[in-house]
Amino acid sequence: MSRFLNQQYQSLEAYTPGEQPRDMQYIKLNTNESPYPPAPSVVEAMTGEQVELLRLYSDPTAKGLKDKLAGLYGVKPENVFISNGSDEVLNFAFMAFGGNGAVFPDISYGFYEVYADLYAINAEKIPLESDFSIDYRKYCGKNKLVVIANPNAPTGMTIPVWQIEEIVKSNPDSLVLIDEAYVDFGGETCLPLIGTYDNLLVTRTYSKSRCLAGGRLGYAFGSPAVIADLEKIKYSTNPYNINRLTLLLGEKTVEAESYYQEKCREIEATRAWTTQQLAGLGFTVLPSKANFIFVKTDQMDGGELYKKLKEKGILVRHFTNPRICQFNRVTIGTKQQMQTLIDTVKEVLYENQ
Amino acid sequence: MSRFLNQQYQSLEAYTPGEQPRDMQYIKLNTNESPYPPAPSVVEAMTGEQVELLRLYSDPTAKGLKDKLAGLYGVKPENVFISNGSDEVLNFAFMAFGGNGAVFPDISYGFYEVYADLYAINAEKIPLESDFSIDYRKYCGKNKLVVIANPNAPTGMTIPVWQIEEIVKSNPDSLVLIDEAYVDFGGETCLPLIGTYDNLLVTRTYSKSRCLAGGRLGYAFGSPAVIADLEKIKYSTNPYNINRLTLLLGEKTVEAESYYQEKCREIEATRAWTTQQLAGLGFTVLPSKANFIFVKTDQMDGGELYKKLKEKGILVRHFTNPRICQFNRVTIGTKQQMQTLIDTVKEVLYENQ
Repeated sequence: MSRFLNQQYQSLEAYTPGEQPRDMQYIKLNTNESPYPPAPSVVEAMTGEQVELLRLYSDPTAKGLKDKLAGLYGVKPENVFISNGSDEVLNFAFMAFGGNGAVFPDISYGFYEVYADLYAINAEKIPLESDFSIDYRKYCGKNKLVVIANPNAPTGMTIPVWQIEEIVKSNPDSLVLIDEAYVDFGGETCLPLIGTYDNLLVTRTYSKSRCLAGGRLGYAFGSPAVIADLEKIKYSTNPYNINRLTLLLGEKTVEAESYYQEKCREIEATRAWTTQQLAGLGFTVLPSKANFIFVKTDQMDGGELYKKLKEKGILVRHFTNPRICQFNRVTIGTKQQMQTLIDTVKEVLYENQ
Repeated sequence: MSRFLNQQYQSLEAYTPGEQPRDMQYIKLNTNESPYPPAPSVVEAMTGEQVELLRLYSDPTAKGLKDKLAGLYGVKPENVFISNGSDEVLNFAFMAFGGNGAVFPDISYGFYEVYADLYAINAEKIPLESDFSIDYRKYCGKNKLVVIANPNAPTGMTIPVWQIEEIVKSNPDSLVLIDEAYVDFGGETCLPLIGTYDNLLVTRTYSKSRCLAGGRLGYAFGSPAVIADLEKIKYSTNPYNINRLTLLLGEKTVEAESYYQEKCREIEATRAWTTQQLAGLGFTVLPSKANFIFVKTDQMDGGELYKKLKEKGILVRHFTNPRICQFNRVTIGTKQQMQTLIDTVKEVLYENQ
């Protein structure tokens, strides 16, 4: 830390992303990336001519992509915000709408707490129920920025849309942010509610179901006034926030919707198979609608299992929070990768006996 | 504006980027982009295989690019910060180091004032001298975040490095940020000073001399402690801030240094030619070491000239600030583009008689 850092950030604890090791080839099941490449038509869109055009700035209004997403999801372009990954829109939302404090589950995406700290927002963390579900009644009538991931991470569990509507209705004077990063793997979107309620913001990402984690592209849906606020923050921090080629790939991705739907169904099938296999080995697997599962076994310490798998070339995500430290979060890869995972888990359990 | 926006941002005035019109083909001399494409080796690096790898997150540590830039500029990787355009590092620097207030010239990159407003930083704007030069003595002993663009924008004028050193020496307890976005077109860098002073931050961009405005890539040099502070802000807002392909193109760009040096020399030659031509038409042209010139004529109102050029298909940048509203900022394009500019200016002046 330098002598010059503002006092307010001196005790800030930053977010720790999943490991990105470079020392060996891992089967990487730790950051919820897609095991599949972008659609062939998306890959082909990246011509030499497009790369040469990188000499020009990208369109700061992202008009082309907003129009495409509005068309795909049946909203208006002024309901759409485009961001440099969904982390950026989460960041902006805490900054813009966290004035009266924020409330989110104790077990959820770890970044929510970092954003609250960063902006000195009073954060109320509501414990998940003992089965890791969310009791929606605990988020009603809060008059604070309510943030819920649906499906939740790292549990993969969902909350029904009618319960989200109750939360939104009961907090008319504050924003409710529903983080739908993982909604495309069997979850149910609350997007239709933005037509009725002006205090709902729904965030999405290209990093999971759209196979573009490295492209850095996220988006959000909300009322025109809420979107305008986010644009104001963007134009006050980094107006050219999105890579020119990424905007292009984002548009091409919308055009290739059927490819991505097919890949999502494959992930769901592989998730069902992996869940069944692990359950057969005595694992507890939380009911997931995401491209990952959250699993534990009574036969072995969660941290120990993580380490042994890593030694054998498989990376999963382990969290040290005491409430979930017996679990590991496992991204759903290809069927073959998951077969290797199951074989390796068997080996590890056997060696641990 | 929504009902939910934090009060502190309600009166914020965002930055206005240069126009990016889509309605006709302009000769675009308004946002200081390069008229040249990236080096052929950079374009060729973008293979289909690399695009497929976009399914994976980028390296949040940007290690490969830090190593390359450290090698090119003779510093250590821990002296280097990598950002999503240089606007991002400027944003982070105001956020992290503006606690005691900030000071910058009245005429400079317009975003400095937006950042100060955004973070409620008390901003002292020191008027440029009547010849648009900077009197360095006015920035000494301030004990605030000092921000100077060198060359300055939109004037293109420079301040000698020995004067920067005096500013840095006389502000030992605050950070001095030198924005070197335009340094590669004949300016002199103050980078060697970071070995001696821990309160100096030097920012750079790939958008101008590296022909990658649409790639969104900036970087900064400073003491390891200052860089660590910027990393902390990054990991608390958006750890995966850079596109995976952009990191690759950034590395390939370093390897093609001689191509970019050659293009910078071409820009300088075209700048000299354009300056001479406009002076011959009676224009005042400020002495520029950037890839743009700041020009005015007594024969015509600055705003009027801007409009007439736009009608004839040439976009330049006009600012409404009364002190500079008689000027236009003209990006240096290819020789042919500048020939067209001169011909068009002649036409406009003739029609205006």
